Amino acid sequence: MQSFELDKSDVLKFKQALEEDDTALEALVAEYHASEIAILFESLPQEARERIISLLPAEMASDVISEMDAEFHPERLLENLHPERRSEIVEELDYDDAADIISQLPEHQQKEILEELDEEDASNIRHLLNYDEDTAGGLMNTQVIKINESFSKKEALDEIIRQSEEMEEFYTINVVDDHNILKGIVSLKDIIKARNNVKIRDLIKPDFVYVRAETDQEEVAKLISQYNLTSIPVVDDQMHLLGRITFDDVIDVMEEENTEDILKISGVSEDEQLAGNWKESVKSRLPWLVLNLGTAFLAAAVIRHFDDTIKQLAILAGYMTMIAGMGGNAATQALAVTVRRISLTDLTDNQAYRTVLKEFTVGLINGAANGLIVFLFAFFYDGNPMLGLVIFLAMTGNLVIAGITGAGIPLMLKRVGIDPAIASSIIITTFTDVFGFLLLLGLASRLLL
Amino acid sequence: MQSFELDKSDVLKFKQALEEDDTALEALVAEYHASEIAILFESLPQEARERIISLLPAEMASDVISEMDAEFHPERLLENLHPERRSEIVEELDYDDAADIISQLPEHQQKEILEELDEEDASNIRHLLNYDEDTAGGLMNTQVIKINESFSKKEALDEIIRQSEEMEEFYTINVVDDHNILKGIVSLKDIIKARNNVKIRDLIKPDFVYVRAETDQEEVAKLISQYNLTSIPVVDDQMHLLGRITFDDVIDVMEEENTEDILKISGVSEDEQLAGNWKESVKSRLPWLVLNLGTAFLAAAVIRHFDDTIKQLAILAGYMTMIAGMGGNAATQALAVTVRRISLTDLTDNQAYRTVLKEFTVGLINGAANGLIVFLFAFFYDGNPMLGLVIFLAMTGNLVIAGITGAGIPLMLKRVGIDPAIASSIIITTFTDVFGFLLLLGLASRLLL
Repeated sequence: MQSFELDKSDVLKFKQALEEDDTALEALVAEYHASEIAILFESLPQEARERIISLLPAEMASDVISEMDAEFHPERLLENLHPERRSEIVEELDYDDAADIISQLPEHQQKEILEELDEEDASNIRHLLNYDEDTAGGLMNTQVIKINESFSKKEALDEIIRQSEEMEEFYTINVVDDHNILKGIVSLKDIIKARNNVKIRDLIKPDFVYVRAETDQEEVAKLISQYNLTSIPVVDDQMHLLGRITFDDVIDVMEEENTEDILKISGVSEDEQLAGNWKESVKSRLPWLVLNLGTAFLAAAVIRHFDDTIKQLAILAGYMTMIAGMGGNAATQALAVTVRRISLTDLTDNQAYRTVLKEFTVGLINGAANGLIVFLFAFFYDGNPMLGLVIFLAMTGNLVIAGITGAGIPLMLKRVGIDPAIASSIIITTFTDVFGFLLLLGLASRLLL
Repeated sequence: MQSFELDKSDVLKFKQALEEDDTALEALVAEYHASEIAILFESLPQEARERIISLLPAEMASDVISEMDAEFHPERLLENLHPERRSEIVEELDYDDAADIISQLPEHQQKEILEELDEEDASNIRHLLNYDEDTAGGLMNTQVIKINESFSKKEALDEIIRQSEEMEEFYTINVVDDHNILKGIVSLKDIIKARNNVKIRDLIKPDFVYVRAETDQEEVAKLISQYNLTSIPVVDDQMHLLGRITFDDVIDVMEEENTEDILKISGVSEDEQLAGNWKESVKSRLPWLVLNLGTAFLAAAVIRHFDDTIKQLAILAGYMTMIAGMGGNAATQALAVTVRRISLTDLTDNQAYRTVLKEFTVGLINGAANGLIVFLFAFFYDGNPMLGLVIFLAMTGNLVIAGITGAGIPLMLKRVGIDPAIASSIIITTFTDVFGFLLLLGLASRLLL
């Protein structure tokens, strides 16, 4: 397919080399890219990770650590290192990565690591540790390429080359005035294409996109994706340039937000680590299940209320689970489509209204279609057309409720500023269970007994 | 928050301007970025979109059309245009965007549009129409910056400036030999930093990532995200350079794949348009609901089998829905975590095995915890400890089954090369419904009667 694809044989090679001496391991590691080693680490135990990190040159070690997914705890690789070696590695990290990783450690270890660093690095990282990690400030890198608007073409190119020595990658060049106020951005291409006697201020793109340090990371991701930006400058309230956020940070944010959405609508806490152990999973899921049990008692109370009806018509028991199950699934469908739509677009009131209306219609049609099938079954198999009618009405009614609540509840939550994805299937199916049983058993007790 | 944020007032401004003459509308449109107009289009009717497109300069019109989300049918804006105007706009589109948009039109319109274009553009777009749209070939842009490996620094810079005249953005420079064989990539920064007497071949990065035209787009997205690439070259089997895919295309692919995942595990067809009308939604969801109804008949058959048990113990009816509902929710939790994990990481056999084992453990603990609550209720409220024991066992057993199937089925599907996300909650809850009822009613008929 492409030049580098990891598979089981790579993991095996590492496991074999780990049995041998450091020379073999060092030779093997040298064949891989830092981001590949970061992925291989996911299949290796902590001791193996620590041993490999200890063998790598500091720059490579820092690349591997910064490429590791947060859920595999890159910070734990720093804990047991010799202080000198550790500061070597941390100094190679971008400030934003260093702050992200260090922030996962206990307070006293954070302090220890920061004290090992030189004053400039430490103060930059300390500064970043102050921002909420879900904001632009928490995401940004303070290392940016910036040039003064009064520079000539030659001054600008010299300065860019000088500044880029310390940076691996850069995408756009920030233009500031004498007070570090961001004036605009310019591309390297535009500078080399320009006449020799041009001033940088003449090359600035007048309408450029930037964010404030407090901006939510989801908003940053939307902007980068909407305007196809490689990077976006971060400023404070007075337009002082603070840093930049690059598209690759945003790809990670998007993956994270998508994982949160999919977990939340399935009734799993958003902070459950996908590769976590069973203890974390129990902690993240048990509260939701207990909540569901509470709502199930509510549904069971409805059933108990119609105890006599069921005793006289035990055949209803099978149809009950059908109505509840279908309602739950139809609600989950409406919920998934609506939550996903909200997370990709900001809906106007009119669009929100039309979404609920659409789900009402879908529920009506799907309910009637499935209700008809069950009606025919009750008619021909049970020989009871009146029972069929009751089930038809309950099915149609419950799927209408499924559509309205599946779309309406996340839209209402969004409206009042709550994350719509917490309207999980657990919450929504409470409505379809309770109303489904009320409809079926209520109608049955009136029309069939 | 940031410089440009659209809200309702923007939509209103457009609606007002649409009531007035073209001058007012033109003045308003000029205040917006193409990608903003593309978003505003989502709230405007088709006639309004067509009128605005007709007022825009061809370049801007093409930017708006290429920024529109596929589900709002940008191709429909081309249908009613005058051929001359249409070819003007299509010529401004990147070849990959043009191919994507045109491919949505009926065959005879595709032909018509291609015939209006000049031969070079038409043949480039025709070429792209041949690739499957979910592959690297379907995603790539054939406009790339490429230079010969034998160029000097000055020749390279001149050539890059010449080629970049026709391109809005470029990120990396492809280096080829005399036969258009891709030799490597080089950054503009490395070229300007190099000594004047350098040859380009000395600047090439030896290990670079590329994909073949047939590579699946999901694989391309993984590579771009893993290696933090701004763009990736696309080659054929002989390493001839065909085009490039940029990070912004991949951001769109990721959004698309994430939407598909979330819809599929919720029992919605992956191709349901989030903003589609009710007819499309019924078409996409009804088959899944009918499938679910089929499985519900299966569960109802289990219940009918225990008809006598329920007649004698009508109280079981309420507990039945509890066991089934809890099993369904626990299964959905395990499913969401597993599907998301698989879509972000390729699991080894050992990891897959440990995932199922973990879900078994989680099911056992969560089942026992919830089972205990229901046991206590049956004990104290119904005064029936034996009934409590039956429910405890059924709850625990059903949540274990939920964990094993919720994790095991998507893992097995992945193993045999089927998209794990189609193991939707609808499929998985069949297991928990049927086994839950079998456990509860089977145990009840043995131990309680």
